Amino acid sequence: MEQRYTRTERTRLRRLPKRAHYDRATVHAVLDAGLICHVGYVVDGQPYVTPTCYWRHGERLYWHGSSASRMLRRLREGIPACVTVTHVDGLVLARSGFHHSINYRSVMAFGTARAVADEDKLAALEDFVEHLLPGRWAELRPPTGQEIKATTVLWMDLEEVSAKIRIGPPVDDEEDYGLPIWAGVVPLATTVDAPEPDPRLLPGLSAPQYLEHLASFGWRPAPARESNAAA
Amino acid sequence: MEQRYTRTERTRLRRLPKRAHYDRATVHAVLDAGLICHVGYVVDGQPYVTPTCYWRHGERLYWHGSSASRMLRRLREGIPACVTVTHVDGLVLARSGFHHSINYRSVMAFGTARAVADEDKLAALEDFVEHLLPGRWAELRPPTGQEIKATTVLWMDLEEVSAKIRIGPPVDDEEDYGLPIWAGVVPLATTVDAPEPDPRLLPGLSAPQYLEHLASFGWRPAPARESNAAA
Repeated sequence: MEQRYTRTERTRLRRLPKRAHYDRATVHAVLDAGLICHVGYVVDGQPYVTPTCYWRHGERLYWHGSSASRMLRRLREGIPACVTVTHVDGLVLARSGFHHSINYRSVMAFGTARAVADEDKLAALEDFVEHLLPGRWAELRPPTGQEIKATTVLWMDLEEVSAKIRIGPPVDDEEDYGLPIWAGVVPLATTVDAPEPDPRLLPGLSAPQYLEHLASFGWRPAPARESNAAA
Repeated sequence: MEQRYTRTERTRLRRLPKRAHYDRATVHAVLDAGLICHVGYVVDGQPYVTPTCYWRHGERLYWHGSSASRMLRRLREGIPACVTVTHVDGLVLARSGFHHSINYRSVMAFGTARAVADEDKLAALEDFVEHLLPGRWAELRPPTGQEIKATTVLWMDLEEVSAKIRIGPPVDDEEDYGLPIWAGVVPLATTVDAPEPDPRLLPGLSAPQYLEHLASFGWRPAPARESNAAA
């Protein structure tokens, strides 16, 4: 397989092309650090942008929801979609307003979604849970036929896709570096706080070890978090 | 002014209507806790979803960028837009896969963007910086005419808009509460790390006090952050 996605008119960055990345490893890394995408689709000329959970499996992007969802019902008809994933990594404070910026990683994918076949839905949903919390699926009350029927899973090929990344300090006009103005980056990060047990949790159940897998998203445990070793 | 936005066919939540909010205070609070929106627009039937910074002023949503940006050039022509803002607050772990969810706050706004007039652009850009970092604008090297010309600022009325919010523990099927499965919420939060001074920062400049204003977005300072009192 080619290591890069083919650049198209839609994925070509015309401004700041050095921020663009088309190699699969970079695109995958951005996608694998995220939980929520924004799905764009069009109904009667009107764009809709719907936030939803997604996951990647190989060269496919998946998302799911209620079979009654407008977004899923429209997309499974085969209309064009645009799926965007964005991580904000910091505020970039420059010496002029003009050069202020954001450090971020984003991916934009164009394509047409298809519905996962009924007989494959269970495996896809397991894949979603295990991608997030490896080991949880086997612990859960198994899905009923009705629940699977009520769930639609869509997928889209990663084909026409690009990543856009900004990192590093501000880039000021050369003559502005001498100005006595604080400049730099204010980093933003996602933190995982201590789990909040369900008020109706049975006694003796500790938060599962696999919550530590969330660190693979680049999310950090909050320092005050208590140990959650299994009882 | 009415305290609520009028519900329309596009903003009516057909599923889970109890998650929908149309009162201005709730919508404003979600918008004011965010930095990045996802703007949807359509070109030749193809949806595009572009992440960009935004800010709110009264009943208007603003965003900006390079005057050469495809997104801004298209939208200023007056085509329909959908602007979505999403905050992810936690993973909701239920006792069945089906009832797993996300705690989130989101806003979806429909409308048509307009360009801020040339003579009003400077004030709008000041508004953006001051909204994020009150006091910074006056410290900066003032914008040049060329920089203002190279920047497009768009706004859209907050008119056809709704918020969607999920909070609280999982809601399981009644018969599942007796299962020995850990359930609860894993909270996610945005953390502001210690500022990283520009490598070319002049000596003697400390990170500004107004960085503390970022707490108004609901972002928390990282505990390890050093004191940044002005020198």
